[in-house]
Amino acid sequence: MSLNVGVIGAGRIGKLHVDNLRLVPEIQVKSVSDIVVDHLELWAKDKQIKVLTSDYRQILNDHEIDAVFICSPTNTHAGMIMEAAAAGKHIFCEKPVSFSLKETEAALSAAEKAKVKLQVGFNRRFDPNFRKIRSLVQDGAVGAPHVLRITSRDPQPPGVDYIKTSGGLFMDMMIHDFDMARYIMGSEVVEVSAYGAVLVDPSIGEAGDIDTAIVSLKFANGALGVIDNSRQAVYGYDQRLEVFGSKGAAQAENNRPTNVEVSTAESVSKDKPLHFFLERYTQAYIDEVSEFAEAILYDKPVVCSGFDGLQAQRIAKAAKQSLETGAPVLLDQVSRQAAI
Amino acid sequence: MSLNVGVIGAGRIGKLHVDNLRLVPEIQVKSVSDIVVDHLELWAKDKQIKVLTSDYRQILNDHEIDAVFICSPTNTHAGMIMEAAAAGKHIFCEKPVSFSLKETEAALSAAEKAKVKLQVGFNRRFDPNFRKIRSLVQDGAVGAPHVLRITSRDPQPPGVDYIKTSGGLFMDMMIHDFDMARYIMGSEVVEVSAYGAVLVDPSIGEAGDIDTAIVSLKFANGALGVIDNSRQAVYGYDQRLEVFGSKGAAQAENNRPTNVEVSTAESVSKDKPLHFFLERYTQAYIDEVSEFAEAILYDKPVVCSGFDGLQAQRIAKAAKQSLETGAPVLLDQVSRQAAI
Amino acid sequence: MSLNVGVIGAGRIGKLHVDNLRLVPEIQVKSVSDIVVDHLELWAKDKQIKVLTSDYRQILNDHEIDAVFICSPTNTHAGMIMEAAAAGKHIFCEKPVSFSLKETEAALSAAEKAKVKLQVGFNRRFDPNFRKIRSLVQDGAVGAPHVLRITSRDPQPPGVDYIKTSGGLFMDMMIHDFDMARYIMGSEVVEVSAYGAVLVDPSIGEAGDIDTAIVSLKFANGALGVIDNSRQAVYGYDQRLEVFGSKGAAQAENNRPTNVEVSTAESVSKDKPLHFFLERYTQAYIDEVSEFAEAILYDKPVVCSGFDGLQAQRIAKAAKQSLETGAPVLLDQVSRQAAI
Amino acid sequence: MSLNVGVIGAGRIGKLHVDNLRLVPEIQVKSVSDIVVDHLELWAKDKQIKVLTSDYRQILNDHEIDAVFICSPTNTHAGMIMEAAAAGKHIFCEKPVSFSLKETEAALSAAEKAKVKLQVGFNRRFDPNFRKIRSLVQDGAVGAPHVLRITSRDPQPPGVDYIKTSGGLFMDMMIHDFDMARYIMGSEVVEVSAYGAVLVDPSIGEAGDIDTAIVSLKFANGALGVIDNSRQAVYGYDQRLEVFGSKGAAQAENNRPTNVEVSTAESVSKDKPLHFFLERYTQAYIDEVSEFAEAILYDKPVVCSGFDGLQAQRIAKAAKQSLETGAPVLLDQVSRQAAI
Repeated sequence: MSLNVGVIGAGRIGKLHVDNLRLVPEIQVKSVSDIVVDHLELWAKDKQIKVLTSDYRQILNDHEIDAVFICSPTNTHAGMIMEAAAAGKHIFCEKPVSFSLKETEAALSAAEKAKVKLQVGFNRRFDPNFRKIRSLVQDGAVGAPHVLRITSRDPQPPGVDYIKTSGGLFMDMMIHDFDMARYIMGSEVVEVSAYGAVLVDPSIGEAGDIDTAIVSLKFANGALGVIDNSRQAVYGYDQRLEVFGSKGAAQAENNRPTNVEVSTAESVSKDKPLHFFLERYTQAYIDEVSEFAEAILYDKPVVCSGFDGLQAQRIAKAAKQSLETGAPVLLDQVSRQAAI
Repeated sequence: MSLNVGVIGAGRIGKLHVDNLRLVPEIQVKSVSDIVVDHLELWAKDKQIKVLTSDYRQILNDHEIDAVFICSPTNTHAGMIMEAAAAGKHIFCEKPVSFSLKETEAALSAAEKAKVKLQVGFNRRFDPNFRKIRSLVQDGAVGAPHVLRITSRDPQPPGVDYIKTSGGLFMDMMIHDFDMARYIMGSEVVEVSAYGAVLVDPSIGEAGDIDTAIVSLKFANGALGVIDNSRQAVYGYDQRLEVFGSKGAAQAENNRPTNVEVSTAESVSKDKPLHFFLERYTQAYIDEVSEFAEAILYDKPVVCSGFDGLQAQRIAKAAKQSLETGAPVLLDQVSRQAAI
Repeated sequence: MSLNVGVIGAGRIGKLHVDNLRLVPEIQVKSVSDIVVDHLELWAKDKQIKVLTSDYRQILNDHEIDAVFICSPTNTHAGMIMEAAAAGKHIFCEKPVSFSLKETEAALSAAEKAKVKLQVGFNRRFDPNFRKIRSLVQDGAVGAPHVLRITSRDPQPPGVDYIKTSGGLFMDMMIHDFDMARYIMGSEVVEVSAYGAVLVDPSIGEAGDIDTAIVSLKFANGALGVIDNSRQAVYGYDQRLEVFGSKGAAQAENNRPTNVEVSTAESVSKDKPLHFFLERYTQAYIDEVSEFAEAILYDKPVVCSGFDGLQAQRIAKAAKQSLETGAPVLLDQVSRQAAI
Repeated sequence: MSLNVGVIGAGRIGKLHVDNLRLVPEIQVKSVSDIVVDHLELWAKDKQIKVLTSDYRQILNDHEIDAVFICSPTNTHAGMIMEAAAAGKHIFCEKPVSFSLKETEAALSAAEKAKVKLQVGFNRRFDPNFRKIRSLVQDGAVGAPHVLRITSRDPQPPGVDYIKTSGGLFMDMMIHDFDMARYIMGSEVVEVSAYGAVLVDPSIGEAGDIDTAIVSLKFANGALGVIDNSRQAVYGYDQRLEVFGSKGAAQAENNRPTNVEVSTAESVSKDKPLHFFLERYTQAYIDEVSEFAEAILYDKPVVCSGFDGLQAQRIAKAAKQSLETGAPVLLDQVSRQAAI
């Protein structure tokens, strides 16, 4: 059994997926599309890509293609999901699915009708630390979960140009943590309350966004949670998580390049955390495509579904609304508004 | 130079102070009062207490007494501060100063007019871990502070009878963390937003209180913070803190009885945290009375003033109001209401 | 530029090298030989091996082959090195090069004359933790090295049949640590003093070997060192190292599957170390073949030379002699004996 | 019940014991002697010492005195033990008991005949980390012990004048670790093999001593051990220990002033170890005198007996002999020599 895959969008994340897909024995990356492809020819040859095209529809129309990876800009995701579903292709879509709940719902509905797999790219679900914590929660090792704490800080902010089209901190960055919250707790978020600030770079504020945030969560099972984000941790990518419950707690620390400890007259020091997501989530990125292949080949549920993508987006939207109104927001309200 | 001290209230904390005061060379504990004293006679003799009385005014009227420790129930604190101030005694008062901001303000005003020292018993300010973090913040080692995270969990809840008269989780338990927030950040809290839940014990809910809470904070300097509390961490007293800023982060871990690590076929394990506040803050309790003595003898400012007590109380009140209304509360509003 | 490689010996380590060689873009594994090959056909096809043969000389005679991996039993290594050198092939040889210093010296001499690269398979030199410590020592971060401590314990002993042909604990197991000692300290071992015991399994003693050992080392630079080995650590593969010097110390801890810490009423625990060498040194095994390829393609020195193999073997021999005589042994003496 | 204590020798350690004895409710420090006492008068008054004398016999002849602390130079210990025993006083003697096994044996014999308690000042036995490891070994938590590793490094060397009269590194410094080895393993040392070097300061070598050493041990139960010492660890007092056995391992880390971790763009660092023995063993020094009092008052065995002192001394002597001869030394041989 084997899968022919086409990748739509060959930016940083698209190229990363190509590299990782090539590590999965069952997968051949047959085709890659991007708006401009001239600069990609050597790269594509080196990666043994058979088809390099500026028209993603060429991929969708290729009956040899089993699955597509949608790695183009966010505003194209929903439309492409619908087209790919119509073409009967299984779909891996980068996060977020869209900036509009309505669009996302339409895309999900299309995939469902077409009975194709749809996996959303929340890569952190595949990190061994977080997976272990999820297992501990599911196995009851910490009892009924009471409190979730997530810290997620990037080593440096993206450029302001990126910020402007990113959908904002909640949709672009904390959306990973919203998904993680649901993944770990096994319970839906029912209310959010957001605090935000511009402390890292005033130009982020001028672009209408925030760079620092704390969001409190209420879960359907009664538990509480809190996520803090910063666009800039000078010591590196800070990705920690803790769940506390009736029978105990489980916490995940940062990963570091080595575990060497150095003691001198000045200090006792160890490595800083792995620099950023490419270093920290190297294996998780591989595992998410490898398990996507498994889901298709053995008809298993995907680890991160379209619904998971929708819910994370909904929480992000609620957080944004809470920040704007200065009051907690019920997820149900966001849901209803989106339905309009 | 030496100080004669009287202790008002010989419950658990009063007795603890007596033991610690006896370790300070400059201090003699001359007198102890409590409502009922019969059962205290042997104890007092053993501690070389000269005067054991059921009338605290006997202490206040004793012109040999330089300072009093108010360790009686909270509803008596403010009145006793005023009486002690009128008698010219320096005052150490357990937290909280009162349940009413108006009463607290009156008590502070009395102490100020009488020009006596007034120290409030936020013992955690004297913990070496937290003191080091405060120093790091003040020295600029973490740059401008952006985010504060405090976790504070008791090993087990007090009895429901205690809960009923405690003033509630925010006033009884999280008040320590509110004080810590101001102490670490060196900036006033201007807004709070509280989430609470009853997850540990339904009878706490029936008593009108919560046992689990997450409170978000906005500081005057623009920074954000979050505190989580639980009345029950089965693994022991969980007291951690982290401050994150433009130049880095500093975090304090739990203290443990030993640092021994045991590796077996089953697991790699270490000691649980020190069980509760008596174990964790042993030295902090000693240092708070020793530095109180220094403040009097060398006319230095106290480490934790009456105003500090007032502010913590104000934040606790705001948190309670936020929980009740489901909306963030500005500290200024609480302040104004209290003035009425 | 690219390299055709042949692998001699398709046991566990030979197969591992095949998998890792296939990850190196510049390398094609063209041929594999083993004494019996019938059971390897499916495997070889799956790995896209063109030539599968029971005659290793077929590989040596293939002029397309640039380099060979010698993964056959130890008693065949030296002879094959000489044949491969004569055939002008670059050589990667598993450790130990042989059980006889004379044979090893002859093999080294043959490779040198033939001007082929010879790398010995001390994979731990490529572990990121140990590499970092070596760099720290070389950069002077710990000053002049004074004391080296290495702990190296296997999760469980091999079968007694293996033990009998293994060359003994010093030649089979501690030889890795002898190499590590030279690698880290950048100085030759001049004297060893060995203590050994049978504490894990009496049948190991009956086979004439020990299962527990402590060996002290003197280095040419005046520093001291100690290595402890056990054939059985029930908690997993224990691989730690510390170097202490005039300006400080650097220590490497074990690696673990995750860094999750779990706190319950019973204990605070974390993962056991990665189980054994395949898990712990996964990346090191990849890097040693990838850097071997680089050494050939860019004519760079190999990270672990034939001389390194010889020296480790010499120290192992000295340790064995020390154990037998109950007295310290000078390396020079071993060297001289070997020359006879 | 209470004890009157006299302290012989008011140098650093004598004064430390006075302070700690004053913390034990059952003890009064009645008398202190030293060769010269003029400079001690204010100090003695402040400590409420009734008798300050330059003649230690005044203490021995005082029938109110129950126990003496011998804190004078080592060459006076054995004689004073004999005199104190003859006077019927319980005895706490600083380590080492003497530089001569014969003298030590005579002193022990005198104490035994007089039926007085004799405790030797190996304070580290009272350290909570090491006590926990001892308990784990005794309770079988690590199974049969196989390997013991002790690291013990001072922050800086004493002056050369001190070195000259210290008895050498083994008798002055590593003697603590020899005692610890017996304490942890619950088994006698039967053979030692010593390596030593002068790496810290050439003037230590010129004084006939070493400053760096590694000593391997064989125990009566078949287990092996190793101790490394250095007179100078620039990062502070390094006191670690690990025992490894058939069911697992237990290791004790250094203690630090705080557990705060600081992450910046440069590094992730924590506190250096507590600086030296006064900081690291503060509580152990208190507990050793408090438990000595208990042993007398309740007629319990002392935690560290005269025999323990003798054995540590014997191992130190064997280590010295091994260093001088370059060969392992059996303890039995040392014992026999001493009997001559």
